[in-house]
Amino acid sequence: MLVAVPLFDRFTSLDAVGAYEVLSFLPDVEVVFVAAERGPVRDVRGWLAMTAGATFDEVESCDLLLVPGGPGTRVLLEENPLLDWIRRMDATSEWTASVCTGSLLLGAAGLLTGLKATTHWASAELLESLGASYTTDRVVFQGKVVTAAGVSAGIDMALALVARLTDELTARAVQLGIEYDPQPPFDSGSPLTATSEIRARFRELAAQRARAS
Amino acid sequence: MLVAVPLFDRFTSLDAVGAYEVLSFLPDVEVVFVAAERGPVRDVRGWLAMTAGATFDEVESCDLLLVPGGPGTRVLLEENPLLDWIRRMDATSEWTASVCTGSLLLGAAGLLTGLKATTHWASAELLESLGASYTTDRVVFQGKVVTAAGVSAGIDMALALVARLTDELTARAVQLGIEYDPQPPFDSGSPLTATSEIRARFRELAAQRARAS
Repeated sequence: MLVAVPLFDRFTSLDAVGAYEVLSFLPDVEVVFVAAERGPVRDVRGWLAMTAGATFDEVESCDLLLVPGGPGTRVLLEENPLLDWIRRMDATSEWTASVCTGSLLLGAAGLLTGLKATTHWASAELLESLGASYTTDRVVFQGKVVTAAGVSAGIDMALALVARLTDELTARAVQLGIEYDPQPPFDSGSPLTATSEIRARFRELAAQRARAS
Repeated sequence: MLVAVPLFDRFTSLDAVGAYEVLSFLPDVEVVFVAAERGPVRDVRGWLAMTAGATFDEVESCDLLLVPGGPGTRVLLEENPLLDWIRRMDATSEWTASVCTGSLLLGAAGLLTGLKATTHWASAELLESLGASYTTDRVVFQGKVVTAAGVSAGIDMALALVARLTDELTARAVQLGIEYDPQPPFDSGSPLTATSEIRARFRELAAQRARAS
């Protein structure tokens, strides 16, 4: 089973790594990080770089396509080699999945038309403009297309995928392996419960990050 | 504020990246990944490589030391340059933190003697052999030394650190930023609730991973 994860400039590292860590426990799996060129690809802040081990041309098909998001998605919504490659992967994949604003790339590739899907809460309108119907569910299965909400939701999605790809016992064992017994110190992780003050503070922090990166 | 994250062969990527993603939202922060040599460092499965931007010699102090874990820790428990560097960082750090079996490295460096600490549940005895008193708490604060339980617990720890480094509103905004409203599909993330069957399946998966990597 081949899992292919595209990387692009200014991706969000936890989008990719949360799901990767879970899926890497699968028996008989292989994971490849793919980009326009081999070599390091920098995340949104530029401090973290992950190595692409193959180019888009070198990966002709995969069983599970896993598309992370990040601010870098915004400049990839018009036709470009990544969208072409996503469509090629999806043509024969068993599963096509995204985390966070990775779903914007699936939408821009034309893969979400008429489907329910999710994304980072702050990008819901943009997702809808790309043909999908945004839902506030944390993980959305639509046939073989699976989308997860913002960043950390990739962990929940990957555990659900492991259960479908293997069995519930294995998925529970992976959950124990990553000791995923979450105890957030606050209850502000959802746009449905966060106050307007918290949203405003988030927008300040995001703007600072954008200026600094 | 400088956050320094050491990397080493066969580290666990989510240990580093869960906490990194949270801390990278801090205003006025800079993060550096550090290793024996600059360049890519491979994780436990070898599919993911993160780039070290500086060598141990090049980072002489930091404000927050964040030590990830992984199977690679096992060969680093005897005297070696990483333990030396950890002790040097800790001498002047404001916070010294670890995720998962990163606490074994803190213990091997002599920093946990007589302290309560946590680690990945499967390494509790090894942690105690290094002088710490293992607790099942997910995040353990002991003065400036903070340890998190296995892998995903780094996210909870980092949110708690952001609250102490800034304020609760900022920490809540970061939680919203990573949409951390966890909804694990199962309840098997803690060794306190997982059955012996789930533990046995985990040990099988971990052994497969070890053989394959």
